[in-house]
Amino acid sequence: VPAGGEFAYISWLRARIPADARVLVGPGDDTAVLRPGTRAQLVTTDMLLEGSCFLLEGPGSATPRQIGRKAMAVNLSDIAAMAGLPTAAVVSLGLPRTRGRALGEELFLGLREAADAFGVAIVGGDTNSWDGPLVVSVTLLGEATERGPVTRRGAKPGDWLLVTGAFGGSILGKHLDFTPRVCEAQQLHQRADLRAMIDVSDGLAADVNHLCEESGCGAVLRAEAVPIAPEARRIADGRSPLEHALGDGEDFELAFAVSPDEARALLAEQPLPGVLLTHIGEFVNAGLWLEQGSERRALEPRGFVHAIE
Amino acid sequence: VPAGGEFAYISWLRARIPADARVLVGPGDDTAVLRPGTRAQLVTTDMLLEGSCFLLEGPGSATPRQIGRKAMAVNLSDIAAMAGLPTAAVVSLGLPRTRGRALGEELFLGLREAADAFGVAIVGGDTNSWDGPLVVSVTLLGEATERGPVTRRGAKPGDWLLVTGAFGGSILGKHLDFTPRVCEAQQLHQRADLRAMIDVSDGLAADVNHLCEESGCGAVLRAEAVPIAPEARRIADGRSPLEHALGDGEDFELAFAVSPDEARALLAEQPLPGVLLTHIGEFVNAGLWLEQGSERRALEPRGFVHAIE
Repeated sequence: VPAGGEFAYISWLRARIPADARVLVGPGDDTAVLRPGTRAQLVTTDMLLEGSCFLLEGPGSATPRQIGRKAMAVNLSDIAAMAGLPTAAVVSLGLPRTRGRALGEELFLGLREAADAFGVAIVGGDTNSWDGPLVVSVTLLGEATERGPVTRRGAKPGDWLLVTGAFGGSILGKHLDFTPRVCEAQQLHQRADLRAMIDVSDGLAADVNHLCEESGCGAVLRAEAVPIAPEARRIADGRSPLEHALGDGEDFELAFAVSPDEARALLAEQPLPGVLLTHIGEFVNAGLWLEQGSERRALEPRGFVHAIE
Repeated sequence: VPAGGEFAYISWLRARIPADARVLVGPGDDTAVLRPGTRAQLVTTDMLLEGSCFLLEGPGSATPRQIGRKAMAVNLSDIAAMAGLPTAAVVSLGLPRTRGRALGEELFLGLREAADAFGVAIVGGDTNSWDGPLVVSVTLLGEATERGPVTRRGAKPGDWLLVTGAFGGSILGKHLDFTPRVCEAQQLHQRADLRAMIDVSDGLAADVNHLCEESGCGAVLRAEAVPIAPEARRIADGRSPLEHALGDGEDFELAFAVSPDEARALLAEQPLPGVLLTHIGEFVNAGLWLEQGSERRALEPRGFVHAIE
């Protein structure tokens, strides 16, 4: 970080970190110190790498502010997937020497926007400048609610598979500007016994497959039921909107397992303001399947749909 | 990560992560889940970047195993500086696509070596491959002891400044293969009221200066008392061994403030097996000073000693 060096940048950061009752010692010591929680603690981390996870220049590029927001939001989405409450984050940066401090400041403002929206304290980090591309690594802490964390492991054959929102085409914008479903997960967790949950980052089919693998079961998705985002219809690349919805990823919606009774109640109530709950399938004993009309075909975790033989 | 992709590497990792009673959910879910602690929680993070923090090729290069160990050990050193107990870590990697999986495996084995030595559970992470250089980011959690964390803020004029070990020349090897002073900090914290502490990473003068800034006081170091590592005498670059000891950094020793009475008791007892405690100066009202014989000169935080005028 030129123009004053890392210490000047860190001073700038520290001046922008508000006091927080949960934080006993914030940035500027060897470690942050937080008040102990009383509930199970959640920890997640995500690293965003320039050129691989985002571009800063050219077509499809993102602003530093958007990258900062996304770096925090992908972690928030992981906490949401456990129906947890996010609490505190640390942020490590590898800043390109040539683009300097303005980039670091914009990044931080984006990180703060996403953190502030969910009451997360930024309590520390490690700021480096180097000759490589931009690297942003965020570790987010959170805690489970009194109902405990929702893992990927509890789905059972017969459970219904529900999702928030719609899928596909996130590359057209949503992958950078999404709302992590932290509040929605809380509301669902209060109303129903969520047996297993995941946030959809790898793709709907892949992430439902993760739920199945961890739970030791299978799932059937009904093609007609999958909510397809309008953006998935706007990509003319030979793949159908359904294939985009099943395979694209970075939707950052929730997919979860509940009992049929609780699922029916949730679907009737639709308790999430502005976010539709949809019943897209059921958990079964084994396999990953797509049902279209009366046909049931194998579904690849990548979202590829096998032709009917 | 070619040859099987990231999922295969992650499976390899998961098979090498032992069960741990503190860990309710380990790698493989959206977040790790840890049992809540009862004491103040510590969080620290460090990012190591190839070409800036280490080299993988050429003179002065490190093995992937050493880099893994160091990435964990620098964080352990931060927990030590709070007199804390390390508990759990998450690890994010940016792996160069061309060097692939062997690099990732060696790194992980190094991370595990350092983690195992201090009872740290590796509970999650984020593994990416990209076209950039190697990036390793570790976030380490810990907890304070029943005496509470030792910050940088509590030094008072009149306190003595003590250090563990010797300083300078770490670039000749110690910067890669050091023992973070986790156990030593525990032992000191049981025996004495440590008023402020830091681990020496930026350099002895710079880090004593950090203690002074955070505590709102100054310090005088006595040149004759500073323990100089043999390696500091082996670098023939025109700077004196003392200047190396004051300025080099990455010694990963502890510098701390205690009352004169407690300092005398510690120095007489020398409670740390194989690690010498040395009294190198005192805290004063303001300034950073080096005393040599009867002369007192300003000491630059970078370790530069001003000539006597």
